[in-house]
Amino acid sequence: MAHRYETDGAAIYRQSFATIRAEAALARFTPEEEVVVVRMIHAAGMVGLEAHVRFSPGMAIAARAALEAGAPILCDARMVSEGITRPRLPAGNPVICTLQDAEVPELAKSMGTTRSAAALELWRPHLAGAVVAIGNAPTALFHLLNMLEDPACPRPAAIIGCPVGFVGAAESKEALMQDLPCPSLIVEGRLGGSAITVAAVNALACRVE
Amino acid sequence: MAHRYETDGAAIYRQSFATIRAEAALARFTPEEEVVVVRMIHAAGMVGLEAHVRFSPGMAIAARAALEAGAPILCDARMVSEGITRPRLPAGNPVICTLQDAEVPELAKSMGTTRSAAALELWRPHLAGAVVAIGNAPTALFHLLNMLEDPACPRPAAIIGCPVGFVGAAESKEALMQDLPCPSLIVEGRLGGSAITVAAVNALACRVE
Repeated sequence: MAHRYETDGAAIYRQSFATIRAEAALARFTPEEEVVVVRMIHAAGMVGLEAHVRFSPGMAIAARAALEAGAPILCDARMVSEGITRPRLPAGNPVICTLQDAEVPELAKSMGTTRSAAALELWRPHLAGAVVAIGNAPTALFHLLNMLEDPACPRPAAIIGCPVGFVGAAESKEALMQDLPCPSLIVEGRLGGSAITVAAVNALACRVE
Repeated sequence: MAHRYETDGAAIYRQSFATIRAEAALARFTPEEEVVVVRMIHAAGMVGLEAHVRFSPGMAIAARAALEAGAPILCDARMVSEGITRPRLPAGNPVICTLQDAEVPELAKSMGTTRSAAALELWRPHLAGAVVAIGNAPTALFHLLNMLEDPACPRPAAIIGCPVGFVGAAESKEALMQDLPCPSLIVEGRLGGSAITVAAVNALACRVE
């Protein structure tokens, strides 16, 4: 016999968000932050993620304002750039991922770093006022912080710093919150990844749940 | 002062996998399964995930054999298809995602289901012997099971069933392991998602860690 299941996409979202709000500890977030955290929990399928989510003051408001003003979204991986829901973008915002650009392997070799880090050098013309979404590589986040130590480097409007994993992820996110070159959002520790990062962008891009 | 970090990609992988093997409870997996679980934990940044990972007997061997024989990989979302590392594929395997195909919105409306489920109707010419990678939509996995209730529907070689979330994810994965139309791999419960699914594909595609 055929399996029966909920087939109304809007109903699935509503029911999911209601479950999350019933179960997760969201009281410490501002209303602007709460909708972002709910969507991050949704993407991870994990109530409890909220304990590791940290916003610098005003980050959610700054990121939303930048997106509404047309800010480009700079992504460290194709899984991030491909996940962003284009119809949610408020101003046809450009979504940029330079990781596959032809010059990146050579650049990485000459810089002595990973391709994920080297690819950020190609962000420079787009960095001013951008929203950065790092959901994969700790080395990308570390390299961005090093780029931003130069006062001449253009400042992004906000950074979603959620690289994942066992080497450098926790450390790079701590470093972001220490340096705080602009308003930022992290998931502390090892957790993170493209789905959580994409969820944060999609929540900040559009007030519709 | 510039942040110093590990810049050797191969060293990062080695160190990550060593940490996972030191911390995770992997004893119940076969050697063929273990390398898959390690990579799934790596993608999630979460030791403990292994408690929720379930293979049907022989799934890892069947999936690897299919991929080595050139099986297409059928993905429910672009975040899955984009995440698969092409140089790891053993036979230039086609990677197919039909979700954005032009006919899908109309098809979903006429079928009375989600676009994620309707998109699977376009898999039929590719299904025989394929490796299925569902990392997003529970409705896609439910619809696949319903398609496979028809004995005339071509059988995939293996199914990676890891949809994520709060509505239907746990239920669709339980249904997959009950029906077991072919060898399958799931993450039980709410956890799952594109990164974990991609990690399983990438591990099964190539023995090199």
